Amino acid sequence: MDKERVKPSILPGFMELLPSDQILFNEMLDIIRKNYEKFGFLPINTPIIEKSEILLAKGGGETEKQIYRFEKGSNDLSLRFDLTVPLARYVAQYFPELNFPFKRYQIGKVYRGERNQRGRFREFYQCDIDIVGNGKLDIINDAEIPSIMYSTFKDLDFGDFTIKINNRKILNGFFEWLNIEDRTGVLRAIDKIEKIGTGGVKKELSEIGINMEAIDKIIEFIQIEGKNGDILHSLRDMNIDNEEFQLGLEELSLVADYVKYFGVPDENMAIDLTIARGLDYYTGTVYETFLDNHPDIGSICSGGRYDNLSKYYTKQNLPGVGMSIGLTRLFYQLKEAKIIESKKESLVKALIIPMGDCLKEGIAIANKLRDEGINIQVYLEESKMGKKFNYADKLEIPYVIILGPDELKDEKITIKNMKSGEQKMFEIEEGISFLKR
Amino acid sequence: MDKERVKPSILPGFMELLPSDQILFNEMLDIIRKNYEKFGFLPINTPIIEKSEILLAKGGGETEKQIYRFEKGSNDLSLRFDLTVPLARYVAQYFPELNFPFKRYQIGKVYRGERNQRGRFREFYQCDIDIVGNGKLDIINDAEIPSIMYSTFKDLDFGDFTIKINNRKILNGFFEWLNIEDRTGVLRAIDKIEKIGTGGVKKELSEIGINMEAIDKIIEFIQIEGKNGDILHSLRDMNIDNEEFQLGLEELSLVADYVKYFGVPDENMAIDLTIARGLDYYTGTVYETFLDNHPDIGSICSGGRYDNLSKYYTKQNLPGVGMSIGLTRLFYQLKEAKIIESKKESLVKALIIPMGDCLKEGIAIANKLRDEGINIQVYLEESKMGKKFNYADKLEIPYVIILGPDELKDEKITIKNMKSGEQKMFEIEEGISFLKR
Repeated sequence: MDKERVKPSILPGFMELLPSDQILFNEMLDIIRKNYEKFGFLPINTPIIEKSEILLAKGGGETEKQIYRFEKGSNDLSLRFDLTVPLARYVAQYFPELNFPFKRYQIGKVYRGERNQRGRFREFYQCDIDIVGNGKLDIINDAEIPSIMYSTFKDLDFGDFTIKINNRKILNGFFEWLNIEDRTGVLRAIDKIEKIGTGGVKKELSEIGINMEAIDKIIEFIQIEGKNGDILHSLRDMNIDNEEFQLGLEELSLVADYVKYFGVPDENMAIDLTIARGLDYYTGTVYETFLDNHPDIGSICSGGRYDNLSKYYTKQNLPGVGMSIGLTRLFYQLKEAKIIESKKESLVKALIIPMGDCLKEGIAIANKLRDEGINIQVYLEESKMGKKFNYADKLEIPYVIILGPDELKDEKITIKNMKSGEQKMFEIEEGISFLKR
Repeated sequence: MDKERVKPSILPGFMELLPSDQILFNEMLDIIRKNYEKFGFLPINTPIIEKSEILLAKGGGETEKQIYRFEKGSNDLSLRFDLTVPLARYVAQYFPELNFPFKRYQIGKVYRGERNQRGRFREFYQCDIDIVGNGKLDIINDAEIPSIMYSTFKDLDFGDFTIKINNRKILNGFFEWLNIEDRTGVLRAIDKIEKIGTGGVKKELSEIGINMEAIDKIIEFIQIEGKNGDILHSLRDMNIDNEEFQLGLEELSLVADYVKYFGVPDENMAIDLTIARGLDYYTGTVYETFLDNHPDIGSICSGGRYDNLSKYYTKQNLPGVGMSIGLTRLFYQLKEAKIIESKKESLVKALIIPMGDCLKEGIAIANKLRDEGINIQVYLEESKMGKKFNYADKLEIPYVIILGPDELKDEKITIKNMKSGEQKMFEIEEGISFLKR
C-alpha cells in the first residue's frame, strides 16, 4: 500500500481492556445494574454530547478547565463530565411526565480532561442512582441508599467495607455556632487530619484566622469517635445551641437507626464526623465507602442528600439523595492492589472441534446446545489438532467437544475437561445434560 | 436565585427516552448481547474519543465531513463514527495478545454530525460482531453470521424477516467479464432498481457510457430471481468465463448450503444479486436483512466479508466477516411503525405500601423479598393512600403489598394485583412464594 501506516494507539488517560478483563469489568457493571434495579431504580440514558450552556449552567472551577468543549456547525457542544448535571436537566425537561419520587439509575461514560497521571482517567464509567422528590423527600430515603451500597458491594465481593455516614447540617450548624465564616478553609484543614495530624490541623486553622477557643472546639468535635451510639451521645452532650446542628443530629440519628432496619449490619456502617464531601452541593446526609483492608484506595462509593437538584433549569424544587460508583478508576485500583484478577474465563461453555468430515454434524450439535441456552463456539478453521486445543486453552474455554468418525458412527460426542484433562464419550443427550450442569 | 435559568433541552439529532421506553431499549440491547455471547463473541469496549489520525487514517468522503473533531491541549481528537475502525486499530495494537480467529462484539454509541432530519441520529448505538482471522479465515464463517442474525432477530421478535445474501466477487467478476470500468456508476444505477425500474436503470447505464450488449447482460443478471437453488443454477448457466465470478459463485453456493446447517430456515434466507453494500470495503459475502412486512424500514442488519481489516495500522493480513445492527435508528423506526410499543412495565414486581406505624416491618419484608431475588420498591413518603396507589399505577408496577395494623397483628401481608384489582391476604412466606411465581 502507498499510504503510510499509522501506529495503532489510544490517547493517554483512556482505559481499554483485553477481552478477559473486559468480561470481568462487564460482570461488575451487571452486578451494579442488577442491584440498582432490585431497589426499584429506573434506567435512563442521556446523550454524551450536550449543549455547553446546559452543562456549564453552574459553571466555574475545575469543570470549565476540564470539560471537552467544541463547536460543530453553529452549535457549542460539550461532553458530559458527570451524570448529575444531565439528570438535573432531564428531570427539569420531562418533569410533567415523571412520577415522583423519581428513582433513576444511569450507568455510562463521562469525560474530564484531567492532567495525565497514573490511575486518573479522562473517560470513565459512573454508576449513579438518585431518588428525586417533588418539593420534598422523606429522610428515610437517606437510610435506604446505604442498603443499596451494602447489597451492591456484598455482591461485588471486594472484601470487607464500611459505609461512613455524616450529616452536613451538623458541620454547618457547628460552624455557625462558632461564628466561623471561612467554612471552606476549615473543612479543607479538617480533611487533612489523616495526613497532617491534630497538630497540623490546629496550625492550619490558626493560619486562616480561627481563634484558639474555636480551634479547641473543632478539635474536640473531630475527635469524637466510637460506636455510632457513642458518637450520637457525645454530639448531644456538646449542648450546642444551634437549630441546624440539632436538626442534623436528629436526621443522622434517624438515618443511623433506619439503616439497620434496611438490613445493613452494624460492622458495615459507621458514623464519621470528618466526612464532608463536596463543599457546596450536599446539604444533609453524606456517604463515603471504604474497603477495610485498603483504605489507601479512598472512597469507592460516595453520595449524599441535596436540596435542589435542578435549580439552574427550573423553578421546581427538587430535593434528592443519591450515590455514585466510579467504576473505571475503581477497577484500575482493584487490579493494581490485586483484589481482583482477570478470570480469563471465556463466556462459552465449550468449543466444538469437528474432525475430518464431521463439520456439519458439529454445527448441528452447536445448534442443539445453543437452543438449550448454552454458549458454544465451533472451531471452523482448518488447522492441526494441537492448534485447535491450544486455542481453547488460551481462551480458557472449560470444555472441548470432539466429534470424529468414531463418535459419529455411534452418535456420540467426546467431552474433554480442559482443566483436568479428563475426557469421556457421551450419548449426545447425555452430553448436553452434562454441559448444562 | 440570581442567575438566569437555562431552558432544559438536548441537541437535535440525539435520542433520549423516558424510562418506560428505556426499559424496552435496554431489553433489546440485552437480547442482542446474549445472542452474541451465545456464539462465542468476546466483549471489547474501546474509547469513544480517539486520535484523529487513527479514525481518519483512511479518510475521505462523508467521514471527514461528519466527524466530531476537536482539540484539547495539544491533542487532535475525534469521536468514533463507527465500531469498525476502532476494531481495526484494536486488533493491530494488541495483535500478539489476541487469539485468532478473534471473535469480538462491541455494543456502544457512535457519532456522526449528519444533516438534521427525522429518523437520522447524530449519536446512535451500533451492535457489532466480527470474526477476524490471522492471514486467513474459512468461508464457513460467512455462513455462521446469518445464523447469529437469525437467532438474534427471532429473539427480538419484530415479525418475519429475510436475510439477503450476495457475494461481491460475483459482481466484480461479472463487471470484469463485461470490461466495465465504472463499477461504482453501475452499482449506483443497479441500486435504484426498486425506485426507477428496469427502464430507468437501462437509461442511467446508457448515460454513463455502458454499451447496449453489456446493458442487456446486466439487466439479465439483476433479473435473476427465484429460490436460492434456481438463482445459483441461473448463474451457472450464464457460462461466464471469469475466475473471480466463478469463485464468488462457489463461495455463495457453499455459504447458502451451510447457512441451512447452521439452522436458518429456508424462508428466512434469500440470495439476492442486487445486494452490494458499501463500494470499497466488502470483498466477498454481503448481507442485508429486511422485515418482510416493513421493507420501507430498509436493512435492519447488514455486514459482510472483507479482506484486510487493519491495513492502515499494521502489515498483518487480517481478513474478517461481520455484521452490525444500528439499534437507535431501528428502535425509532419500529416505534414509528408501531411494531414495538413501550410496555410501561416497571422493573419491580411489587411496591410495598406500609400504613400507619408499619414502616419498619414493611422494610423488613422488602429485605426478605430482595434476598429472594425479587425487585421491590418501598413507598417511603408520607402521603394519602390514593396517591400511593396512583404511583404504583402510573409506574405499571404489577403488585402492591399492603401492610397495616391488621396484617401486622396476624403476621400477614395483603397483596393487590394492580391490573385485576383483586387483593388477598397471605401468610408472609406464602406471599413470597406467590410473588416468586
